[in-house]
Amino acid sequence: MSAIVVTSDPAAAVRATRVGMVGAGQLARMTHQAAIGLGVELYVLATSAQDPAVRAGARLVQGDPADLHALRAFAAECDVLTFDHEHVPAEHLATLEAEGITVAPGAGAKRMAQDKLHARRTLGGSGFPVPPFVHARTPAEADGFAQVHGWPLVAKAPRGGYDGRGVWTVPDSTTLEALLAEARDGLLVEPRLAIDAELAVMVARSARGATAIYPVVQTVQRDAMCREILAPAPIDPTLASEAGELAAAIAEAVGAVGVIAVELFVVGGELFVNELALRPHNSGHWTIEGACTSQFEQHLRAVLGWPLGLSALRAPAVVTVNVVGGAGAEDPAANLPDALSVQGAHVHLYGKTPAPGRKLGHVTVCGEDLLAVRADAHRAVAKLEGRVA
Amino acid sequence: MSAIVVTSDPAAAVRATRVGMVGAGQLARMTHQAAIGLGVELYVLATSAQDPAVRAGARLVQGDPADLHALRAFAAECDVLTFDHEHVPAEHLATLEAEGITVAPGAGAKRMAQDKLHARRTLGGSGFPVPPFVHARTPAEADGFAQVHGWPLVAKAPRGGYDGRGVWTVPDSTTLEALLAEARDGLLVEPRLAIDAELAVMVARSARGATAIYPVVQTVQRDAMCREILAPAPIDPTLASEAGELAAAIAEAVGAVGVIAVELFVVGGELFVNELALRPHNSGHWTIEGACTSQFEQHLRAVLGWPLGLSALRAPAVVTVNVVGGAGAEDPAANLPDALSVQGAHVHLYGKTPAPGRKLGHVTVCGEDLLAVRADAHRAVAKLEGRVA
Repeated sequence: MSAIVVTSDPAAAVRATRVGMVGAGQLARMTHQAAIGLGVELYVLATSAQDPAVRAGARLVQGDPADLHALRAFAAECDVLTFDHEHVPAEHLATLEAEGITVAPGAGAKRMAQDKLHARRTLGGSGFPVPPFVHARTPAEADGFAQVHGWPLVAKAPRGGYDGRGVWTVPDSTTLEALLAEARDGLLVEPRLAIDAELAVMVARSARGATAIYPVVQTVQRDAMCREILAPAPIDPTLASEAGELAAAIAEAVGAVGVIAVELFVVGGELFVNELALRPHNSGHWTIEGACTSQFEQHLRAVLGWPLGLSALRAPAVVTVNVVGGAGAEDPAANLPDALSVQGAHVHLYGKTPAPGRKLGHVTVCGEDLLAVRADAHRAVAKLEGRVA
Repeated sequence: MSAIVVTSDPAAAVRATRVGMVGAGQLARMTHQAAIGLGVELYVLATSAQDPAVRAGARLVQGDPADLHALRAFAAECDVLTFDHEHVPAEHLATLEAEGITVAPGAGAKRMAQDKLHARRTLGGSGFPVPPFVHARTPAEADGFAQVHGWPLVAKAPRGGYDGRGVWTVPDSTTLEALLAEARDGLLVEPRLAIDAELAVMVARSARGATAIYPVVQTVQRDAMCREILAPAPIDPTLASEAGELAAAIAEAVGAVGVIAVELFVVGGELFVNELALRPHNSGHWTIEGACTSQFEQHLRAVLGWPLGLSALRAPAVVTVNVVGGAGAEDPAANLPDALSVQGAHVHLYGKTPAPGRKLGHVTVCGEDLLAVRADAHRAVAKLEGRVA
């Protein structure tokens, strides 16, 4: 197209608040959408102009998020540095903080999302309930753990995993040995828990220490990837309230700034902390239409030290279902008009190139009745994924 | 800033649906926000890279919206051509339509918003209730009208007026004569009506003829500019239902495509059609948080011929209050953190350079009780406008 995409000249207008986000995926894309309303300018540090947030109009600064110089130059132009992913080396963040740059969350807090082993140790050491675990660097270390908990075990790469990548069910010692041969830093090994449900709690904590807790949700996984989110979680209110308090205490303890997603397992009626994400998170997408303040606006408010918004539900039942790329790599955009025929379906497409197993969008439906809402959300997603005529 | 340049290369990714909007003001800005969710790319034809929609990331094509060649080149690259304002010459639109370009709304319908006199004549001629009026090209023509309706009269420029510009209360014949000396096409003259209330109804009509009617709202003007919108209008349900039916009938009669705002006067319990806007409109900003489908998403769905979304209210009371530039031309962005302390206030800033009397943003609050909601919205706006400590 002959279109000139023009960079605004910041000097020509009022200096807007600038938030710098490292990464330009769908989380940055939806953060940009929220930033527009607030008159905040979102800058993103990323390598590709095809990334979802850039296609939505966030201002791209091209650079490698793992390069300290690129990070420093980027941060210098923004009022605060924050993240759409976990892939920025923690030592770089610590360096930037030491140089006086506002990093939200800070390096110490962010490490809780980057290193599962560190998180387990820290949280367990602080008295938060975590599953039994061992750091196995040799088969013998896992064998000892297996004598207590039995095979199979679950092994996780301490760093870099997401959407089921970096997680393995391990039937025996030989299999573990093979995995360890590939693992640089050993593995986090835990029992295969009899999980009744997975929950997630989004908490926002502002740079000034204010906190807002979102209603506890249930996440439903398929193929180790989160496929749907039910808000509020259809669980006992006492357990829900415990989960909320636990998540808020963790946000406080780790010194989170911004939104933090606390993922929990329910095992035999007890809560165990699984993982943390110190950024907007898939389990909070429902908040765009389902809560008074979306997690994306809330994250911006929190990292800027602005007052937090209300986190209450806007409807008795809210369900979000992810749109995941199928084997044929069809583009859900081609099926959008059909999906929009589902009344009440709020469709979000991320502008990503379709690929099998890739999250390409999500659909949220709000209503009175969980079953009806859930059925509508799945109906729209089935259409987007091309699974229905 | 160091390095921000990005032209997305459309060839490198899936071809997204492209909507071309003429104009890049706040309506295009909020349309862009809605387009992101749908994975639709919004292109805007405008002259300045500082325009609100461009600052939010809509793709700018620089060109004069009054230039046929610019319009043609712009439209050729988009799937449909639509508008953020009324300033495109109707004859250009007719030319483009004749050339096979999809223009939504079409030239004939759009003229109903561009030419108040044409709208009055057409609507009146079709049996819709319009106030008494005369097209005065000479003082004598107005004098005759004044003998029936009395002075003062209200005179309106048939074209180009907005936010109270182009509307005058005329006390006598001499004043009218002076106005007529400046008026190229004469004036639309009507009685000064004893208006009980002003209402507005947003109707979406898709390229395929489907219709969605939003709840009727009351608009409250100050200094001839819309300052607040109350949804639903606190009026007799029978009158509200009449207003909705009237607006839907008008949308159908004029062949609107996209959203259309029908502005109505209530005089002695009777409805009169004041003006039409065939585009998203200030009176529909409340729909972003207050309705199941925002007017901006609805407009996109309508002009693309996609299924329309639900238009129902999401709360019993929704109030939107405009943020208007004051005498000191303060930037409301400077007061944003303070305004966000008002719980439940959804703030939208347009990224415009402040100027006295300029609409710079709006605030919407949703809740149970109209009075409480209205008070909160005004409180947040007072803070943004710097009218409170």
